[in-house]
Amino acid sequence: MTDQPTPILSQNACDLSAAGTDAMPAHLGQLVQQRLNTLGPTSMLFYQKPLELVCGEGVWLYDADGRVYLDVYNNVPILGHGHPAVVSAVSQQLATLNTHTRYLDRRIHDYAERLMETVGMEEGRLVFTCSGSEANDLAMRLARRCTGKQGVIVSEAAYHGNTDLVTQVSPSSYKQGTVPDWVEILSLDELLAADQTASEPEEHGRLSQALAEQTRRAIQRLNDKGYGVAALLVDSVFSSDGVVTHPGGFLAPSVEAVQQVGGWWIADEVQPGFGRCGDTFWGFQRHQTGRTNKAPETQEGTGQTGHVPMPDVVTLGKPMGNGFPVAGMIAQHSALAELNRDVGYFNTFGGSNAAVAAATAVLDILQTQRTQQHAQTIGHVFYQQLNALCEHLPTAHRVRGCGLFFGMDLQAPEGPVGQERARNARLTSAVINHLRQHGVLIGAAGKAGSTLKIRPALCFQPDHVLFFISRLEEAITDVSRQLAHE
Amino acid sequence: MTDQPTPILSQNACDLSAAGTDAMPAHLGQLVQQRLNTLGPTSMLFYQKPLELVCGEGVWLYDADGRVYLDVYNNVPILGHGHPAVVSAVSQQLATLNTHTRYLDRRIHDYAERLMETVGMEEGRLVFTCSGSEANDLAMRLARRCTGKQGVIVSEAAYHGNTDLVTQVSPSSYKQGTVPDWVEILSLDELLAADQTASEPEEHGRLSQALAEQTRRAIQRLNDKGYGVAALLVDSVFSSDGVVTHPGGFLAPSVEAVQQVGGWWIADEVQPGFGRCGDTFWGFQRHQTGRTNKAPETQEGTGQTGHVPMPDVVTLGKPMGNGFPVAGMIAQHSALAELNRDVGYFNTFGGSNAAVAAATAVLDILQTQRTQQHAQTIGHVFYQQLNALCEHLPTAHRVRGCGLFFGMDLQAPEGPVGQERARNARLTSAVINHLRQHGVLIGAAGKAGSTLKIRPALCFQPDHVLFFISRLEEAITDVSRQLAHE
Repeated sequence: MTDQPTPILSQNACDLSAAGTDAMPAHLGQLVQQRLNTLGPTSMLFYQKPLELVCGEGVWLYDADGRVYLDVYNNVPILGHGHPAVVSAVSQQLATLNTHTRYLDRRIHDYAERLMETVGMEEGRLVFTCSGSEANDLAMRLARRCTGKQGVIVSEAAYHGNTDLVTQVSPSSYKQGTVPDWVEILSLDELLAADQTASEPEEHGRLSQALAEQTRRAIQRLNDKGYGVAALLVDSVFSSDGVVTHPGGFLAPSVEAVQQVGGWWIADEVQPGFGRCGDTFWGFQRHQTGRTNKAPETQEGTGQTGHVPMPDVVTLGKPMGNGFPVAGMIAQHSALAELNRDVGYFNTFGGSNAAVAAATAVLDILQTQRTQQHAQTIGHVFYQQLNALCEHLPTAHRVRGCGLFFGMDLQAPEGPVGQERARNARLTSAVINHLRQHGVLIGAAGKAGSTLKIRPALCFQPDHVLFFISRLEEAITDVSRQLAHE
Repeated sequence: MTDQPTPILSQNACDLSAAGTDAMPAHLGQLVQQRLNTLGPTSMLFYQKPLELVCGEGVWLYDADGRVYLDVYNNVPILGHGHPAVVSAVSQQLATLNTHTRYLDRRIHDYAERLMETVGMEEGRLVFTCSGSEANDLAMRLARRCTGKQGVIVSEAAYHGNTDLVTQVSPSSYKQGTVPDWVEILSLDELLAADQTASEPEEHGRLSQALAEQTRRAIQRLNDKGYGVAALLVDSVFSSDGVVTHPGGFLAPSVEAVQQVGGWWIADEVQPGFGRCGDTFWGFQRHQTGRTNKAPETQEGTGQTGHVPMPDVVTLGKPMGNGFPVAGMIAQHSALAELNRDVGYFNTFGGSNAAVAAATAVLDILQTQRTQQHAQTIGHVFYQQLNALCEHLPTAHRVRGCGLFFGMDLQAPEGPVGQERARNARLTSAVINHLRQHGVLIGAAGKAGSTLKIRPALCFQPDHVLFFISRLEEAITDVSRQLAHE
């Protein structure tokens, strides 16, 4: 899900020690102390000076001191904070009926039908869960059950959730130690460094093939160790790795390598899904031939994936209910039937009437208000602006992204050799905290913690872009100057 | 969580095959077929003739044909369906602010403080999750991390959730195969057969010691196999085993045996918690010395558990938000700090502002409206009535329970030798479906599927008891007569 708790991320976080709270204004220090006494050590807070929020509306959040913040961090409220149509749908449903999926409710089926039309998996079925973690946990069980294999391939700074099983395939969650022997890691360094604005088909092909070659070596190692390959489990835009979206279709040869040996492609859409990518409704569709949003139609009725790599499982979460907890997993009927021979699967809160009311309201808006197209249009403007910043500010090193999901790498001014990574992370943390002090909420990503993760609600408007760019420019300039003088 | 998908339970379920849907009224058959095409094979429906619900209020549910049902099955809406105070609290919060726990919100801490006062764990901390499954998954990880051991002891028909890890310790989820080598099973046969109305201290002691002896043998086997004992993981009233509540404190010697060798007691309160047990707020408190609800106070400030066995972890779920997805795990600060050295833990939906609004509204009502006391009072009446039924109907074999949580074993009239278990399960399924046809919703439990699981909302009133008893008597009488004539 969103927030891989890397040590890097902790650099952006509040100091929860007694010394840390002493340095805060009394009211805030007491609140943080109360938190330590109630939620304990795992409960990290954002920002050196934590935020006490009281209200949210659209792309704006308001704190207890009456200050306002442009939110470019939170991807759960994909339609904006407190979207009235979703609030109204949930409120009405809670007052009317809220049970579980062991009773019939046509709206549950109708929603599932509409959702699966956008995915285009033949004989696909939707299993509701409560969280993206539960969805990925179930997807891995399903892949292992159906392939008979154990090995899993993930990206270097992947985050897939918080259960025992998916934590093991989430390298970004590790503070010490390393992934188990049955997990193989793909490096995205080359893709992260690629120039997104350049158009060089040959170079694009080389990057895709280089990843596929890494994948083949990972498969070989898993086979050598006797695990075999159950799945390539990847967030379709590699959010926690720092957002990797180009060259279009770059994952296809890797998927092909995995599927050729009987492994599964699990497309983790918890972050990229539901139109955020702009050009496609789902992130995985950007890796299908031609990067068209029409992938489902081209496959309909043929039963063939042909040259179009199709995920064996698609997992969903975060924005699905705009904040109401609802998530799910889409897999083929035959696979679920196989699992169902061993164990049943039921999720009490998954697909409750209120969850489906929230999810339906979200899908209604996404499909009737051209939200995805808006994300593409405004995203294009946003990308140009971010790229322009990279061109005239040396510290703004590089930007990647699509739709309304970007990763911007920051690079600290020159300093002691061998300390670049630490300096970049420190710079990024300082920029994030500067922005927080100046009315913008943002977070970090990437294995080095030096990538700004930018993913506002899809109702983002041009004036929000301009406001953000102006604050970001100030933050980078101020922080760079401070660091240069240290 | 609630609904362990045992093969037994499937006997009470809708036939989802094409032949099954053909036999239904056209509208219902189409709806079930649509469900098969969208949610697939894992999506079991209750009842031979599935229910299409449209509305719920208090203890009543209404279907699409305008029929009304007394709900004695659903334990999530612990205050009743559509409780206006909870609906209102959630609706207002969703419209105002709904983010996650990485920002400060005093209400999150206040709730945690109030909740933990009821638990009384010294240096206890609350980690919010989205579901009880996630809570148990995290509890097991924590136990293994802190004890350095792997083995887990559970009851014979336990259900602890749906993730990869907790499914493995949920024998009732298995349709084929068996639990892993690191899981040991306790039989509850003797306790299930004990007469709850009898008062024989010696027999009570013998039952508790017999369970402890089983536990010690399980510990020995886990040690012999090299796993050691990480945890005794038990639902405090053994809901899916058929509800085992007496003799009071029967678990204490077993807990002592586990804790003496460094293993943890994980009290799964997902089903028994939040006042349902009547005499205590938490199910685990029934196993503490004296079975008093004042356990927290007696320990406060002493730092000693003394003779009072105290859980190392308490897991929460289902009724916590009266239907809004919210759950959690309470463990000691030091244990969480240990986990936090290896990996972070964050749960996007866990403890969101709306989740805490729901949970706070529920706790407000439970603590101000004497709900637990009501559960005890009305539960006593209910138990007497159920017991009276057992005395005059041979098929109503035996009843166990406390507060508003009962298990009633049904026993079929005589039939072919060696088929008693199948006959009992068939009878129970027939009774459940009869009740559904006559306006009462109920489910089954127990490894043989021949226990009625009775757990209505805590706003249950005497007239509901009488209505239920009358319908149950009719159902048992009618079904017994039918079976006798076959």
